[in-house]
Amino acid sequence: MPDIEEALSEIVRGAEEIIPLEELRKKLESGRQLTIKLGMDPTAPDIHLGHTVILNKLRTFQKLGHRVVLIIGDFTASIGDPSGKNATRPQLSREQIEVNAKTYADQVFRILDPKLTEIRYNSEWCDKLGAAGTIKLASKLTVARMLERDDFSKRFAANQPIAIHEFLYPLFQGYDSVAIKADVELGGTDQKFNLLMGRELQKDAGMEPQCVLMMPLLVGLDGVVKMSKSKGNYIGVTEPPSEMFGKIMSISDSLMWNYFTLLSEKSNEDLERLKSACLNGSMNPRDAKIELGREMVARFHGEEKAKEAVEGFLNQFQKGAIPENIPEFSIEAKPVANILKEAGLVASTSDGLRMIKQGAVKINGKAVSSKDEKVVPGTAVWQVGKRRFARITVK
Amino acid sequence: MPDIEEALSEIVRGAEEIIPLEELRKKLESGRQLTIKLGMDPTAPDIHLGHTVILNKLRTFQKLGHRVVLIIGDFTASIGDPSGKNATRPQLSREQIEVNAKTYADQVFRILDPKLTEIRYNSEWCDKLGAAGTIKLASKLTVARMLERDDFSKRFAANQPIAIHEFLYPLFQGYDSVAIKADVELGGTDQKFNLLMGRELQKDAGMEPQCVLMMPLLVGLDGVVKMSKSKGNYIGVTEPPSEMFGKIMSISDSLMWNYFTLLSEKSNEDLERLKSACLNGSMNPRDAKIELGREMVARFHGEEKAKEAVEGFLNQFQKGAIPENIPEFSIEAKPVANILKEAGLVASTSDGLRMIKQGAVKINGKAVSSKDEKVVPGTAVWQVGKRRFARITVK
Repeated sequence: MPDIEEALSEIVRGAEEIIPLEELRKKLESGRQLTIKLGMDPTAPDIHLGHTVILNKLRTFQKLGHRVVLIIGDFTASIGDPSGKNATRPQLSREQIEVNAKTYADQVFRILDPKLTEIRYNSEWCDKLGAAGTIKLASKLTVARMLERDDFSKRFAANQPIAIHEFLYPLFQGYDSVAIKADVELGGTDQKFNLLMGRELQKDAGMEPQCVLMMPLLVGLDGVVKMSKSKGNYIGVTEPPSEMFGKIMSISDSLMWNYFTLLSEKSNEDLERLKSACLNGSMNPRDAKIELGREMVARFHGEEKAKEAVEGFLNQFQKGAIPENIPEFSIEAKPVANILKEAGLVASTSDGLRMIKQGAVKINGKAVSSKDEKVVPGTAVWQVGKRRFARITVK
Repeated sequence: MPDIEEALSEIVRGAEEIIPLEELRKKLESGRQLTIKLGMDPTAPDIHLGHTVILNKLRTFQKLGHRVVLIIGDFTASIGDPSGKNATRPQLSREQIEVNAKTYADQVFRILDPKLTEIRYNSEWCDKLGAAGTIKLASKLTVARMLERDDFSKRFAANQPIAIHEFLYPLFQGYDSVAIKADVELGGTDQKFNLLMGRELQKDAGMEPQCVLMMPLLVGLDGVVKMSKSKGNYIGVTEPPSEMFGKIMSISDSLMWNYFTLLSEKSNEDLERLKSACLNGSMNPRDAKIELGREMVARFHGEEKAKEAVEGFLNQFQKGAIPENIPEFSIEAKPVANILKEAGLVASTSDGLRMIKQGAVKINGKAVSSKDEKVVPGTAVWQVGKRRFARITVK
């Protein structure tokens, strides 16, 4: 076992909140193998870099020898939203859930160590509760306490309907922690209430309560809102090496350091060294960004592909052709020529059409082949000729 | 089938509220055999006259050919109050529930027709719901709607805790109506919210919704608060004939008419006749009271016992010895002599002791044999010598 303080500093890195830190330290000091819980919603199996923030943290625990339990929330997914009002809660068949869980597993094992990872389906213990067990579970919390949850309190104050079954979901999620005897549960800061529920229910069951470690939500490529598929500002973990690399190269320098903290496996020490070098001018931030891109591609596609991606990128951009500071735009989706005009990369739409015809327009280093080429939502570096650049987020 | 209007007037008699009356009329007009539901709490199987108000109404439906379904709430009784805070919700074993249900059945069949009565246990369908079905059931109502229930809204406003499972009980109770396809549900006015829940859930399930018939709570012998075992102002249906009769004779004249409306099988017409006779002086109200007592004893012990009770009572009280208006008192339980003193029936406690020794003190016509005789809580006519009377409620 490595030194506890060192372990703790790796665990704490990038975390938004740990409740309570002292208990976590004690658990680490106990020397036993801890059970680290992460709940997974089987309705959205495609993961992007935003999801990997927490997976990286799980990996940190695994490096310290602890065991990760991924919980597939098939129990509630098989029910869906009984009111039919919540589109983010579709009812899934057993087959869909299995396929999604498999897809999810394929992706997370690019980060997690399979030997220290267990996948469990929560229907295993939730179904067993039955109607009577559900009543007992529901008795563990008061209505007033449940209404303290941020989204409930807002909806209640605004007279927006909250169906009673919505009060049961956090309880079932908390019960998962009792069932697997979790020592630590990870989640996003938006999950605080539900994460603490597990703690409460474990105490009630006479167990040592879990600690809760909350990670921030990763900001998307646009540097503004959280990374999500619907905003188009994401990098999927199954994207081809060159796309993934190009997208990383498209982010701003300040966002790069945030990504390093939350996504890189580099030690705290190595990161500090890199940052100092960029600050004192002994390193070009673009090279640090290339290093981040290389690490990400290597993680999901291997070292070989990462090397190719770096070389391809450098060739396409003719080594150093991207200026350090380029203007940024956020533009509604429209034909390529119109976007070029709106970003000021061309004088007029017809100018834009001519440049496309000449093959002088590139998006993330790839030439646009036709004026009718579909513009994919998301952030990318757009280039016209050799000198005109813009970082454009297409909405 | 008797005339609908006549049937309806018997059904409506004494009812506090019927929702909606027009739908009930239509159900009656349909000519089919209706299913009338009554839920029974198996934690309190001993019934008193207060409970029979609703049983009488069920009997009215049976006389019209309809079918009564008594639902034993064994599902929730087997859970009890999971928080352990509610003493009125003890957790019962399967055996206790069966014994209580048997006790209950023995009593209700003194009023109901067994051929038109079915007894069902709601665990039959509630257990089948499972955890997933419970979530679906909970999705049928919003938190805001549930908080409209009188006791919930009061507790919520007063910051008194409401455990979340308490929100589930009315839903399960309402689900009973779906399970047995109830046409009409009977209950006390304090049950309005729960009774209407059955209506809502039936509509949601695409069924013809039940009508709801609410009966008032019977006032106890003291004429003040509702009849209940804990207040001692009750008549149990298994009490011996003479006690039952004596207790009826102890009530005030105005309460007597209320009891006639809610407890007697006499037709509306017969009741009107009786009332007029007392009003115009052609009948002594005491004789009407004897008639009520006779009917009650006959119902629970048969005509023979009723006749004996009337005769015994008249002999003990030497025909007409009870004045029409006697003073009423409500006194904390204490030794007989002290109660006599407090009610002004004797000049002093030692005077009271002397009267007891002489055998001159009677409670509901029965002589007090010793100064140490245990005073039973409840309302009774106390008598000292031949002329001193008081209606005393011992608390």
